[in-house]
Amino acid sequence: MAEIRHSFVTARGVRHHVAECGEGPPLILLHGWPEFWAAWEPMFERLSSRYRLIAPDFRGFGESENPHPEPTSTVNAASLADDVVALMDALGVAKAGIVGHDVGSNVMQVIGVRNPERATGFFFFNCATHGVGSRWNQPGHINEIWYQTFHQMSYAAELASSSRENCRRHIGHFLRHWSYRKDAFDAVLERWTDNFMRPGNMQGGFNWYIGQNSGRLAVMAGTAPQPPKITVPSRVLWGRHDPILRSEWADSLGDCFSDVEVSFAEEAGHFVHYEQPDQAAQAIDAFFTQLAERRS
Amino acid sequence: MAEIRHSFVTARGVRHHVAECGEGPPLILLHGWPEFWAAWEPMFERLSSRYRLIAPDFRGFGESENPHPEPTSTVNAASLADDVVALMDALGVAKAGIVGHDVGSNVMQVIGVRNPERATGFFFFNCATHGVGSRWNQPGHINEIWYQTFHQMSYAAELASSSRENCRRHIGHFLRHWSYRKDAFDAVLERWTDNFMRPGNMQGGFNWYIGQNSGRLAVMAGTAPQPPKITVPSRVLWGRHDPILRSEWADSLGDCFSDVEVSFAEEAGHFVHYEQPDQAAQAIDAFFTQLAERRS
Repeated sequence: MAEIRHSFVTARGVRHHVAECGEGPPLILLHGWPEFWAAWEPMFERLSSRYRLIAPDFRGFGESENPHPEPTSTVNAASLADDVVALMDALGVAKAGIVGHDVGSNVMQVIGVRNPERATGFFFFNCATHGVGSRWNQPGHINEIWYQTFHQMSYAAELASSSRENCRRHIGHFLRHWSYRKDAFDAVLERWTDNFMRPGNMQGGFNWYIGQNSGRLAVMAGTAPQPPKITVPSRVLWGRHDPILRSEWADSLGDCFSDVEVSFAEEAGHFVHYEQPDQAAQAIDAFFTQLAERRS
Repeated sequence: MAEIRHSFVTARGVRHHVAECGEGPPLILLHGWPEFWAAWEPMFERLSSRYRLIAPDFRGFGESENPHPEPTSTVNAASLADDVVALMDALGVAKAGIVGHDVGSNVMQVIGVRNPERATGFFFFNCATHGVGSRWNQPGHINEIWYQTFHQMSYAAELASSSRENCRRHIGHFLRHWSYRKDAFDAVLERWTDNFMRPGNMQGGFNWYIGQNSGRLAVMAGTAPQPPKITVPSRVLWGRHDPILRSEWADSLGDCFSDVEVSFAEEAGHFVHYEQPDQAAQAIDAFFTQLAERRS
């Protein structure tokens, strides 16, 4: 694997940490919660010989600055999309392939509407859209979405980071519960715990849920405006056994994307890139190679 | 106020703590979560000159034994109803008025179906029934019900009781959020914290949510069997501003009770007995006095 290059880039007034690896056409990798840039290391290992991989930490995550150490509703898909575009500007990347999941996949959908000219293509791992609708809050899914509220509580970050043990319990719960390969994060759990114990990082991640709340309730209620269809060529690899973003929700992708292909990772849950990194890397490479051939 | 008499009574193999106060016709007072017998002290003060008030701690609460220090699904409305009936037997109380809310109101509804002969009447503060149905999981209520899942998590009790501060944060959140009179519990918050820091009590309370889960999901889904109508004469005083058990849900009480009268405490939320104790005590006394006159 090529060396990982760490740098700090100011975008929209916030000092962002960016991890890069490899040379070639740029691919921007956007993490989810509870993650940070290191979630992409398995892709660094497998794709750095062919791509310039650029994995930023969102504001409030990883080693990026958290300008909102207290709960705020200003961190949402739109504001993080603006951060990503500003980061691309700062890095001199006019256009790139963008890969993401979870928080990242929401951010990509905003970029797809506002800044489609910045993306050669979108590769999503699992991809919840407004088409999920009231399936979010059906009785069979109710016991999955509790954290989306808990993370909005003013005392939640204190509860979850008042001790290293509590941090490990909370972060570890989701890494394991959302995985199909249950041991996927066992070797890095202490490192993930280190990360979320960094001052500001527990609240930094939780701010996402505060900022997204009104939108998610509107999606459940069916009152969210239908966004324009995303025309950026898109590819979704959905972990079959993701308990929080259910693979059957892929049925509505056609309503949201005009050019999308979907397949399923049969042995993965929420973290396809970490649970089945070989399959993930092959699918990313195949998609962006095909796009490059289509363009040439 | 008469002296409070504390005793320990074994019912169904579990050592229960019972606080009693006053002399007269027996009234059994059944607490909710996050509460214990002391939630009824305002009623002791106001009613002990006319009634024998009997306030047990449910198993796993207050000073009662918690036979399930680990998560269990065996604590539910049916099992706690059996505990109450066994306690009545042990105390030599053949029949009593029963007053309750929250956990207690669910337990009373089981007694109303299985053991109606043990109750002269039921007085409920707020009273969620199966008639709430899918209103539990509507988008406008989703951010209220998260704790019903969080409390089922295997690590939740560790998170919420790993320190006194965390216990105070979690218990204090609900005492304040569910109250309309926001300072109702300020003076006793340290005492409530002491109580939930007693070994086993955080998990003891959380076990209720594990045990009730399948039933609550069935109610949301509309697949719960319609229970027989409760014929015990019943009175409901519903706090108008309860954010978790909404006062408009009183509309379905007639489907569940054949003899019920409802009114609203306009200046109260979830804890009418603690927020508006004068109004609560007057309503309890008026109801049971009227029932006694009806019988004579």
